[in-house]
Amino acid sequence: MTTHLTPLFAPEGVVVIGASRQSGKLGAAMARSLAPFPGARALVNARRPEPDEGVYASVAEAAAHTDGRLDLAVLCVPAAGCAQALAEAAAAGCRAALVCAGGFGEAGPEGEEHAEELRRVARETGVRLLGPNTSGFFAPHLGLTASFVPAAGQLPAGDIAVVAASGGVNHALSFDLVAAGNGISLGVGIGAGLDVDAADVLEHLAEDGRTTAVALHLETVPDGPRLVAAVRRVAAVKPVVALVVGRSDVGDFARSHTGALATSWRTTRAALRQAGAVVVDDERELVDALTALSRVQLRPDPDPGLGIVTAQAGPGLLLADRAGTDGIRMPELAATTQGALSELLPPLTYQRNPVDTGRPGETFARVLATTAADPAVDLLAVYALTEPDSVDLASAAQDAGLGADSPAVVVVGGLPEDVAEQRARLHKAGIPALTGPASAANAVRALVTHARQRALRGDGPAPEQAVAPVPPGPLDEDAAKTFLAGLGIRTPDRVACDSRADAHYALRLLGGPVAVKVLDAAILHKTEVGGVHLGVRTPEELDAALDAIGPGRRCLVEAMAPAGGDLVLGVRRDPVFGPVVLAGLGGTAAEALADVAIRLAPLSAADAASMPDDLAARALLDGWRGGPVLDRAEFGRVVASLAAALAASPDTAEIEINPLRLTADGLIALDAVIVHTAPPAEENDHA
Amino acid sequence: MTTHLTPLFAPEGVVVIGASRQSGKLGAAMARSLAPFPGARALVNARRPEPDEGVYASVAEAAAHTDGRLDLAVLCVPAAGCAQALAEAAAAGCRAALVCAGGFGEAGPEGEEHAEELRRVARETGVRLLGPNTSGFFAPHLGLTASFVPAAGQLPAGDIAVVAASGGVNHALSFDLVAAGNGISLGVGIGAGLDVDAADVLEHLAEDGRTTAVALHLETVPDGPRLVAAVRRVAAVKPVVALVVGRSDVGDFARSHTGALATSWRTTRAALRQAGAVVVDDERELVDALTALSRVQLRPDPDPGLGIVTAQAGPGLLLADRAGTDGIRMPELAATTQGALSELLPPLTYQRNPVDTGRPGETFARVLATTAADPAVDLLAVYALTEPDSVDLASAAQDAGLGADSPAVVVVGGLPEDVAEQRARLHKAGIPALTGPASAANAVRALVTHARQRALRGDGPAPEQAVAPVPPGPLDEDAAKTFLAGLGIRTPDRVACDSRADAHYALRLLGGPVAVKVLDAAILHKTEVGGVHLGVRTPEELDAALDAIGPGRRCLVEAMAPAGGDLVLGVRRDPVFGPVVLAGLGGTAAEALADVAIRLAPLSAADAASMPDDLAARALLDGWRGGPVLDRAEFGRVVASLAAALAASPDTAEIEINPLRLTADGLIALDAVIVHTAPPAEENDHA
Repeated sequence: MTTHLTPLFAPEGVVVIGASRQSGKLGAAMARSLAPFPGARALVNARRPEPDEGVYASVAEAAAHTDGRLDLAVLCVPAAGCAQALAEAAAAGCRAALVCAGGFGEAGPEGEEHAEELRRVARETGVRLLGPNTSGFFAPHLGLTASFVPAAGQLPAGDIAVVAASGGVNHALSFDLVAAGNGISLGVGIGAGLDVDAADVLEHLAEDGRTTAVALHLETVPDGPRLVAAVRRVAAVKPVVALVVGRSDVGDFARSHTGALATSWRTTRAALRQAGAVVVDDERELVDALTALSRVQLRPDPDPGLGIVTAQAGPGLLLADRAGTDGIRMPELAATTQGALSELLPPLTYQRNPVDTGRPGETFARVLATTAADPAVDLLAVYALTEPDSVDLASAAQDAGLGADSPAVVVVGGLPEDVAEQRARLHKAGIPALTGPASAANAVRALVTHARQRALRGDGPAPEQAVAPVPPGPLDEDAAKTFLAGLGIRTPDRVACDSRADAHYALRLLGGPVAVKVLDAAILHKTEVGGVHLGVRTPEELDAALDAIGPGRRCLVEAMAPAGGDLVLGVRRDPVFGPVVLAGLGGTAAEALADVAIRLAPLSAADAASMPDDLAARALLDGWRGGPVLDRAEFGRVVASLAAALAASPDTAEIEINPLRLTADGLIALDAVIVHTAPPAEENDHA
Repeated sequence: MTTHLTPLFAPEGVVVIGASRQSGKLGAAMARSLAPFPGARALVNARRPEPDEGVYASVAEAAAHTDGRLDLAVLCVPAAGCAQALAEAAAAGCRAALVCAGGFGEAGPEGEEHAEELRRVARETGVRLLGPNTSGFFAPHLGLTASFVPAAGQLPAGDIAVVAASGGVNHALSFDLVAAGNGISLGVGIGAGLDVDAADVLEHLAEDGRTTAVALHLETVPDGPRLVAAVRRVAAVKPVVALVVGRSDVGDFARSHTGALATSWRTTRAALRQAGAVVVDDERELVDALTALSRVQLRPDPDPGLGIVTAQAGPGLLLADRAGTDGIRMPELAATTQGALSELLPPLTYQRNPVDTGRPGETFARVLATTAADPAVDLLAVYALTEPDSVDLASAAQDAGLGADSPAVVVVGGLPEDVAEQRARLHKAGIPALTGPASAANAVRALVTHARQRALRGDGPAPEQAVAPVPPGPLDEDAAKTFLAGLGIRTPDRVACDSRADAHYALRLLGGPVAVKVLDAAILHKTEVGGVHLGVRTPEELDAALDAIGPGRRCLVEAMAPAGGDLVLGVRRDPVFGPVVLAGLGGTAAEALADVAIRLAPLSAADAASMPDDLAARALLDGWRGGPVLDRAEFGRVVASLAAALAASPDTAEIEINPLRLTADGLIALDAVIVHTAPPAEENDHA
């Protein structure tokens, strides 16, 4: 395959511009790292050329001596000289370049000028530029180490690619992946991302046959929709596991590092998840997830079942406990499976799932195969300490047929050298080997998440919902609710009243109790100005409420909704990702905990229906204390309609339903606010 | 040192009873594992004795041939024969025994009989018995491997002890600790715990000079107060890091494994924390915590400051993000420190904390020393990829004086062999080496938690609070509140009313609005029977409320409290740990999330004052939306008094204040329920 990044990541030839002889210098380190590259190779040192040793005075001269095969230029010159060097490299035929140094965007006005020049040369010449401010990249298959970290050259080739915002993290993740028994297909640190960014590299990886799974590390997102499209493209063909920085407020340091504002952590994670990435919490979880996903995957399934076979009950219990906490289903094994197991195992062990083998013996492989074959088991997790005189775990796992066709993760406990030996054999057989219960639980969670997300994506993209746009506003509560009702969202019976007489008529019409609320699009927080009166039953109470609201004000008289749990649902425009939906539970505790589910809009009703299950306090929606159960399908339809409405209404900044009440009869919007971006009334006047 | 477990864990001689020649058998495995033991050693095989090879027909004969030095008997006989074998061993002079086999408590009535016999023999002979249902223990310093897992014999000696509920977990944790560059002083799997339990081993370890830190793994707690006392005793002299199983519902499998009911996960963790243990979430965190705590500790400090020095900004950002999420304080460095750093580092790097060195050079050691010396830095975390040509991290850390006197954790990134080399040198110098940002963040959290907990314990035990016991009787709300008021807890002004006239008098006395509630100790859920009427202002409204409550019923007329956040506070008796305090926030979301802080009672006001900070939604207590801020000291006094009251009242099962309202003027108990264990009125009659 060839992509527009092939000259960068798979060049025919490489030239180091600014190759130094001083061993501490960047140019010298780069020249050393690139020395083993088997393709064309040249160094440029304007001050000390030695053409006999492949050190030339200029890139043009270097190109002439290498039949023009130098398509990648590695620039080891100061920031001020980079643009000029890039122009010369482009003129000499280079089509890609790497700039490692700092001193650009993060370094004040002068640095920004250098960055601007460099960006201009790249744009004008069409050279694809990685960096600046990165330690580079490596492609072990090609013997290509364009990094100044010496050990990078010893990373074994394999099938996991790393795309990291930071050069240091690219190296750290690659070393971690290798320590866990994996190899690397390509490792890239984006750095400042003046030209090539994470989305570009992801698009390249979608085409890269060597890569079976991708690690993605993000600090900032310059272009949300482009990143989402790129992740979606890769995730459609191979797993993407993503780690996003910025859960806590590390803004200051992060800005110093990247020269850019941090994106909202929650929204970025939600967007990546929706695009098909498996999102993890730290780099260990990332390594565990990739160790598993690069070797085995489950079929798309909304709720895969986990079987556990353990040779030692205690560690198996740790694993089962973690899997249970993560919401992984561990089905009881079928009677036939239990029957077959009872013939293979001593009578006293637990055999329903987890399957506790006791000290494993010669039947171990058959126990694994039997459990994996249970119809309710979609994934098998195996734990055993290495005990060479009782069982050879790697052989047993292979004998049981575990691997791509029978997805499993295997934990081998024991001394590091024993574990490494078993792991190498398991990996060779395509069976992921993990390092302990927590590590296996991470792998299980990643495999299950991947299967669940693909089941969801199976519903396809959001259907084009033909909805009327939000009318020009400002819209008061009555108008907002009328619009919602047009979307098929239930609202209470109500009468908008211009006078006291109207209000009394409304009370008679609706019967008591009613809610009486001030009706004025300019008032966003009605309660705070005494504009909301609930449980009004009698004409006297109504008069009192109207007096409190103030003479001459319009009001809304509305049937009271039955009691129930409250949700908050909103659609708005995220500055990075565009339209998003947010759903949470009502009440201050949910708010204080930021217990909120986020999706990019538009989205399908099926995708939206899964939002409540993201909420930590979701138990409140599932018949809490005998209360109603949220109909996920109804919720999904409400969300999808709201999201479609925002998409259809370019002048609308935000639509919020708060509260959206969960009643025994379904969802009902008790209050609604629609905010416009511009004063559309005025625009309308001009139309 | 000698403890009553010395014959078990440091015997002069060992005898294997039931030593087999069949290599797959337990007795053969044990004989092999114990072969390298340098003390006295004998095997007993009644069917095939070979005295010339040290295999005797009976334990008495074995003892006679070894000058009676066999103080530990390892029993490898079936469950049915264990009691008899133990009796013989005791008669031959053994003072300790290990039984690995299963077939006891977990194996139905017959097994329980075997267990009972075994327990009886142990009690009668005074032999200390480890097991059954464990893979044993190991003491690498002594060359003693009483485990049938072959690799256990190769665990290096060191200073971390493992006390695990499960033999498998003992081995797994020990292997994990060793893989992280540590050694083991003693590793014990408790198993069924017929005699020796975790508390016994902990008490032994408190005296064991070789052990500098302890790993504790718990599945069940047979005796809460004894465990707490043992943990307290060890934690006073060396760090204890505890992992508790049972976060999810793994009851069925757990019971099959241990033959016992799982203890409440939350309460067990709270009890361990209060006793001084650092409680972790999984075995990786346990290893990270012990790798750090066995080498360095911070001074007791309620809020230690973390300094970070990183050679690569990206991984440093991952570490800072995690530390920030964990609530670790990262102070900005002093101006003098920043000044000193600016002379050591290039101008463009971030130097306020984290300190980003850029590619490290010869000044790296001085950067470390300078940052560590900052007055606000109590702990330094260092990240660097191995780059042999730029810096030798282990040497730099030593040159900077990091270690016991200048606590630090160091992450070395790189190829496994490079990392292992650096780690070995760091560990030799007493500096904990971790494997990545997540691992370092775990270590930092453990060190900080340990320092915080010791600062809290510095306040000493709960002072004996002289409080009046709860009066007998079922107590109605008025009586319960009067009792609380006697403890110094604020309650609303109120009048208990026997008649309608009383109630009208109370309304006049208190002024409106008042709360009117049915007053009857037999009604626990007043709201549900229509017994609560809030905001009553007029005589008419009062009459309506009294009508609804029902004619002839007593009622409580009470001043309404100002609005504010609500807490729930209760003291009750836990079946395992005895009196406990539970505090949470009001509202269903907090309840659905089980967001609750737990402490054992009695406790000091200072310890209780830290409870609100355990709550995930604690932001609600700290001036949420301009609301009041909870006075932690006042809260601590309320909790301590309530806990003392329960301790002083043996007949009281539970006292609950719900809600305990947080107002601008402090805390006020709006409702209270006191539940007695027995019908004390009747008891009283007999008194």
